Amino acid sequence: MRIEILCTGDEILTGKTINTNYGHIARRLVELGLTVHWGTVVGDDRPSLRAAFAEAALRADAVIVNGGLGPTVDDLSQEVAAEAAGVPLVLHEEWLARIEGFYARRGRVMPPNNRKQAMLPEGAEFIDNPIGTACGFAVTLGRARFFFTPGVPREMKRMLEEQLLPRLLAQGGLPGVTRLKRFHSFGIGESRADQMLSDIPGLEEGAVKLGFQSHYPQLETKLAVRAADAAELERLLGPIEAEVRRRLGNFVLAEDDASLESVILDALRAAGGTLALAEMFTGGAIASRLARQPGAEGLFASGVVAPALDRLCASIGIPAPVAVTPEAAAAVAQALRAGSGASHALAVLVAPDPGPDSRDWGGVICIGLATEDAVVTRRARLTNGRDWVRQGATEMGLDCLRRLLLGLPVDEPVDFEQR
Amino acid sequence: MRIEILCTGDEILTGKTINTNYGHIARRLVELGLTVHWGTVVGDDRPSLRAAFAEAALRADAVIVNGGLGPTVDDLSQEVAAEAAGVPLVLHEEWLARIEGFYARRGRVMPPNNRKQAMLPEGAEFIDNPIGTACGFAVTLGRARFFFTPGVPREMKRMLEEQLLPRLLAQGGLPGVTRLKRFHSFGIGESRADQMLSDIPGLEEGAVKLGFQSHYPQLETKLAVRAADAAELERLLGPIEAEVRRRLGNFVLAEDDASLESVILDALRAAGGTLALAEMFTGGAIASRLARQPGAEGLFASGVVAPALDRLCASIGIPAPVAVTPEAAAAVAQALRAGSGASHALAVLVAPDPGPDSRDWGGVICIGLATEDAVVTRRARLTNGRDWVRQGATEMGLDCLRRLLLGLPVDEPVDFEQR
Repeated sequence: MRIEILCTGDEILTGKTINTNYGHIARRLVELGLTVHWGTVVGDDRPSLRAAFAEAALRADAVIVNGGLGPTVDDLSQEVAAEAAGVPLVLHEEWLARIEGFYARRGRVMPPNNRKQAMLPEGAEFIDNPIGTACGFAVTLGRARFFFTPGVPREMKRMLEEQLLPRLLAQGGLPGVTRLKRFHSFGIGESRADQMLSDIPGLEEGAVKLGFQSHYPQLETKLAVRAADAAELERLLGPIEAEVRRRLGNFVLAEDDASLESVILDALRAAGGTLALAEMFTGGAIASRLARQPGAEGLFASGVVAPALDRLCASIGIPAPVAVTPEAAAAVAQALRAGSGASHALAVLVAPDPGPDSRDWGGVICIGLATEDAVVTRRARLTNGRDWVRQGATEMGLDCLRRLLLGLPVDEPVDFEQR
Repeated sequence: MRIEILCTGDEILTGKTINTNYGHIARRLVELGLTVHWGTVVGDDRPSLRAAFAEAALRADAVIVNGGLGPTVDDLSQEVAAEAAGVPLVLHEEWLARIEGFYARRGRVMPPNNRKQAMLPEGAEFIDNPIGTACGFAVTLGRARFFFTPGVPREMKRMLEEQLLPRLLAQGGLPGVTRLKRFHSFGIGESRADQMLSDIPGLEEGAVKLGFQSHYPQLETKLAVRAADAAELERLLGPIEAEVRRRLGNFVLAEDDASLESVILDALRAAGGTLALAEMFTGGAIASRLARQPGAEGLFASGVVAPALDRLCASIGIPAPVAVTPEAAAAVAQALRAGSGASHALAVLVAPDPGPDSRDWGGVICIGLATEDAVVTRRARLTNGRDWVRQGATEMGLDCLRRLLLGLPVDEPVDFEQR
């Protein structure tokens, strides 16, 4: 089945708004084993919309149209769809009542131009939008079924999951249930992960599809499954999921919607602990990652950020070691823990190369972790320029803390470090 | 003139790689007064490329094709272009020598499959790539001139500026010189900026085009100019540029490639100063913004990050005030400055609303700034949820520091605050 994505709107066409909707829709289709065949972007203008609908109607089996369902005069999707289908626009009374209710609950009266959002091509299939005033709809043009969705990302995503994907799977003769299982890891590159996992028994049958999304320093490993029912899905996915988890081992940071940060805060919470941080070169990036998490306030005790070792140590009130070493990181972590009253302390020290930024530029990362019972350290050299070293040091610091909290070894080498 | 952008590649089509090239090309065209008319995305497959070339050849005056110029078998742009033009591929001897030289300078021998990158459709116009092994080229198909560019963003951007835009301006009968003048501001929303600036004399003539790109909390105001020569460009742009600067006033953070962070560090450097930071709720985001700047090491003395006022004050070694107030921010900044030995200290304190995150959720930001001579404060309430409050507080803290360093008032109200 050939599926196309047609994104509309002047803001998207001219690059003013970055078209994140396209990528989201395409990735979800591919994850479910559906095929994206063509993408089109046109502006809010009738001749372009007409031409784009006509071309896709000849080429595709299904077209996801995104945008153009708003209340203003430049939102043309319903109108051009009706014209292309050769039918009038008719009022969808129930949707009009829903829009009026939407405003009434906010103590407001619906502006008259929102009525336009309840005008659908005659005979169109209504597609519900539970969180907005732009409903979706579907019509057949030429050989293709056209599905219309609003441009607001939150509304589009919800309608894609709940309404469009089941219809597309059914249309493609791929009924049943689907799931996307995700593993987030740090330390294994995409090509090595592919080597490590692609011969897992069961994958060759194709019902479970392995994929990767690399966003340095993390790698996302995805298992997309489709099955006739929930029981078959479990039977197919279970053994493969367990094997992926086993092979990636301690490098798995988190699964599905969890994150490295949420796993750390959950483990700290479970231990009744609190955290103190000292950062050099990463410049607050570790603190900032944790602080963004809901509930971080109660677990994150305090942080110290400094660009150089002497200033960092002055902030903590200890004499500065002569160099960035694992021993220095241990000393900083211990002093930080003692001074802050936190149960856990993490110190990330970096000795950057001299000279200007380049691909070869790197730094030595020394990480110290202190608890009531133990002090552990980790040393690694990262290269590939300042941004990569900074991001890698941030991730490695957080990952060492996760490993300590979960009782895993903190010194397993990662693919990104120079040995 | 109708210009289309045609992006090729399975990674782009399937959403695995986010298509940032499209937006960059579209924005640059619009900034120069050229019109983007259509966007297409297809994968690395011959029938789709053939169809996309054929459709664009009927529709457009010019087509920018991006991607498919690599050395591997799935890079098909030259081959399909030659087929569409009805000509053979021929070896471009000079480019082959350039590729071989490229490898030789790195002490390596060119792999045999890179030879493919020097095969161009017979009669094609060669387009230089000064920083990579994929050269560009141009051919005419149907009514449209097709310009082929590599998918590597750095190479595409350079070739777009140096090679494609001048050709497109000439083809569109828009010769001459162009410039994009940019102002970065904090505190004025896009619609108000539009009201403040759209009646500037000279803009109505259309040679200087006003545009905005909003990325909260900053707004970018752009003046795109095209003129016959440099002198005319100065004559057109000069008065309008000065008037935009005057009207946006103290809200302009930086111009062109400068940033809020670089302006702050330049001002600190000029004053022979250093900075100490204390952050609450922003969780290291202010330190992290500054630390990423080249040369920050020598200017940024130290930072303290804590989620709550008592812990922040404990880190600095002062008794905790009872509440987040401008007076508390002043006290923290003074103690921080005294303790750190820095010439300037910035304290950003936040009293967040109780309760879960929502659109109405907000916080009161209290900012304290201490120098040898003075202590100044700023108070503001921001809403719209945790992320917006966090980003707004980070920006406001940095902006107050900029204002202090430049001798501007720190308490001009911004559009985002609740009054």
